[in-house]
Amino acid sequence: MRIAIDAFGGDNAPEGIVAGAVEAAKEYTEAAITLVGDEARVRELIAANGGTALPNLSVRHASEVISTDEEPVRAVRRKKDASLVVAAAMVKDGEADAVISAGNTGALMTAGLLVVGRLKGIERPALAPMIPTMDGVGVLALDLGANMDATAEQLTQYAVMGSVYRAKAHGIASPRVGLLNVGTEPGKGNEVTKAAYPLLEAAPIRFVGNVEARDVLNGVCDVLVCDGFVGNVMLKSLEGTAAALFGALKEEFTRNTISKLAAAILKPGLRKFKNKMDYKEVGAAPMLGLTGIVMKSHGSSDARAIKNAVRQTVSAIRSDVVGTIRSELGKGE
Amino acid sequence: MRIAIDAFGGDNAPEGIVAGAVEAAKEYTEAAITLVGDEARVRELIAANGGTALPNLSVRHASEVISTDEEPVRAVRRKKDASLVVAAAMVKDGEADAVISAGNTGALMTAGLLVVGRLKGIERPALAPMIPTMDGVGVLALDLGANMDATAEQLTQYAVMGSVYRAKAHGIASPRVGLLNVGTEPGKGNEVTKAAYPLLEAAPIRFVGNVEARDVLNGVCDVLVCDGFVGNVMLKSLEGTAAALFGALKEEFTRNTISKLAAAILKPGLRKFKNKMDYKEVGAAPMLGLTGIVMKSHGSSDARAIKNAVRQTVSAIRSDVVGTIRSELGKGE
Repeated sequence: MRIAIDAFGGDNAPEGIVAGAVEAAKEYTEAAITLVGDEARVRELIAANGGTALPNLSVRHASEVISTDEEPVRAVRRKKDASLVVAAAMVKDGEADAVISAGNTGALMTAGLLVVGRLKGIERPALAPMIPTMDGVGVLALDLGANMDATAEQLTQYAVMGSVYRAKAHGIASPRVGLLNVGTEPGKGNEVTKAAYPLLEAAPIRFVGNVEARDVLNGVCDVLVCDGFVGNVMLKSLEGTAAALFGALKEEFTRNTISKLAAAILKPGLRKFKNKMDYKEVGAAPMLGLTGIVMKSHGSSDARAIKNAVRQTVSAIRSDVVGTIRSELGKGE
Repeated sequence: MRIAIDAFGGDNAPEGIVAGAVEAAKEYTEAAITLVGDEARVRELIAANGGTALPNLSVRHASEVISTDEEPVRAVRRKKDASLVVAAAMVKDGEADAVISAGNTGALMTAGLLVVGRLKGIERPALAPMIPTMDGVGVLALDLGANMDATAEQLTQYAVMGSVYRAKAHGIASPRVGLLNVGTEPGKGNEVTKAAYPLLEAAPIRFVGNVEARDVLNGVCDVLVCDGFVGNVMLKSLEGTAAALFGALKEEFTRNTISKLAAAILKPGLRKFKNKMDYKEVGAAPMLGLTGIVMKSHGSSDARAIKNAVRQTVSAIRSDVVGTIRSELGKGE
């Protein structure tokens, strides 16, 4: 299996990315990893990380870089030699099975769509990050990408793709798929979710019905289906509430000497808990519905995060996520 | 001003409702309060609360009750002599300026729509509760009622109605109105929010632009506009996260004797904070867009909550919320 990594995407690029790729190449010897970006600089960093002799680590030169704040579509169209675009083109050209980037999310999704290309029958590829749950397991939620509106049919495709990914890449035998909604009864919801319900019942998945936002954190499903707008509102509500709560706790804890002492005793447990609630910790998110594996690693990815992204990607390639999505979607036709 | 109160709606009906009404009649002598429900029982409770001699407290008999789990539309249509329906009919018949109920939310909204009636030009009445913010002020959010989908024009009507209510009933000179969205830039959002943005800019309100869910708790606006589906997801995400966090804190705090001691020191501050996050504490929610004032008090309302609901209702009647909404909406035509 061959994995292309954008060496120049993310806050810690290229140093953290290359360091993570070197570690990954050492551990996952079945993976042939290609770092894409300024060749001289990448080779320098590979050497600094003691990776020069690794037989499964190579470099592909790319002269340009897409920054985080660039307009995605324009950047992908104009910067043909950007590390992210070149890495995506390797998948399109059959030179790689997967691409990983910690760079501009919109640009990676655009490159997925325009360069890698959609699977036949897929209307909209979807970004599927893991949302933290209280039991520490997490739920795969999609779409949390750039598609704000979704039809009932598109939600059903998300459900099938998410179910396949969770089964194949995460080894869950029969993933429970829930539809984000305002009540658990079948008749609840807006026009789109009401229309999606019977389609999900008929889809080749284990549909467990509607799921309310307040239950998502309790881990009531393994895959959560929603449109990008609602998913974003939910995720930012979770983030915002958690941030507000931790902010208020901090204030309470530093009120006086006694409270500071009390807080010090509780701190280790709270930190563990805070990490659990940090969805950035949960790892790379696949973009599903494309002819290859496209993995978005979070912008602040360090070497460890990149190594984790490689591990997830290896698992997705080995279990043939793309081929299985293709055949599962064919079933409904 | 005349206020009809459904004496048989809510978890604490009729005892808590009547007790609250008696207290309110004592304090707000400018309000003529009519308790609606089984006359003998209500008079008994008025006497028990020492309210028999109050000149501004009367009773209107109603023989039926709509329970919390009844299907709203059917209940309102069939139970013509239900306390909630009779109270709403008093507004329709010009016998009251406002109705307050802590009963079945759907039934109250149905009675608002079918019995009280919409203001001319209003497509959809909206339920507008206060959502808690970290500064303790709160934000009026609408629609959080039964209308799941909303058009851009309907969102704009919500904005005008919410702005009038916040200005008139809460005395905020120039309420900041925000549109719940996935990013702050004007071009962000789904089809509906993108279409609503320019309409909101042109509306007779102080539109402060898009507001992200994670900023809502920070009190960045006084009125938050959203459709019922997205609003519900946001609210339940806030609730769910807060509940999950407090649950985990409790677990952490009761781990051992030392942590219990530490927690005891921090408890008062945390309780204050927890109360702040409890949106049920914030009071009654108006249903806006009707020809009279309709106030939904939460189901668990006790005497204090009912008295607060009367206070809010007095303020809404005195400031002519209904007449102002009528004239403000006329401006756009």
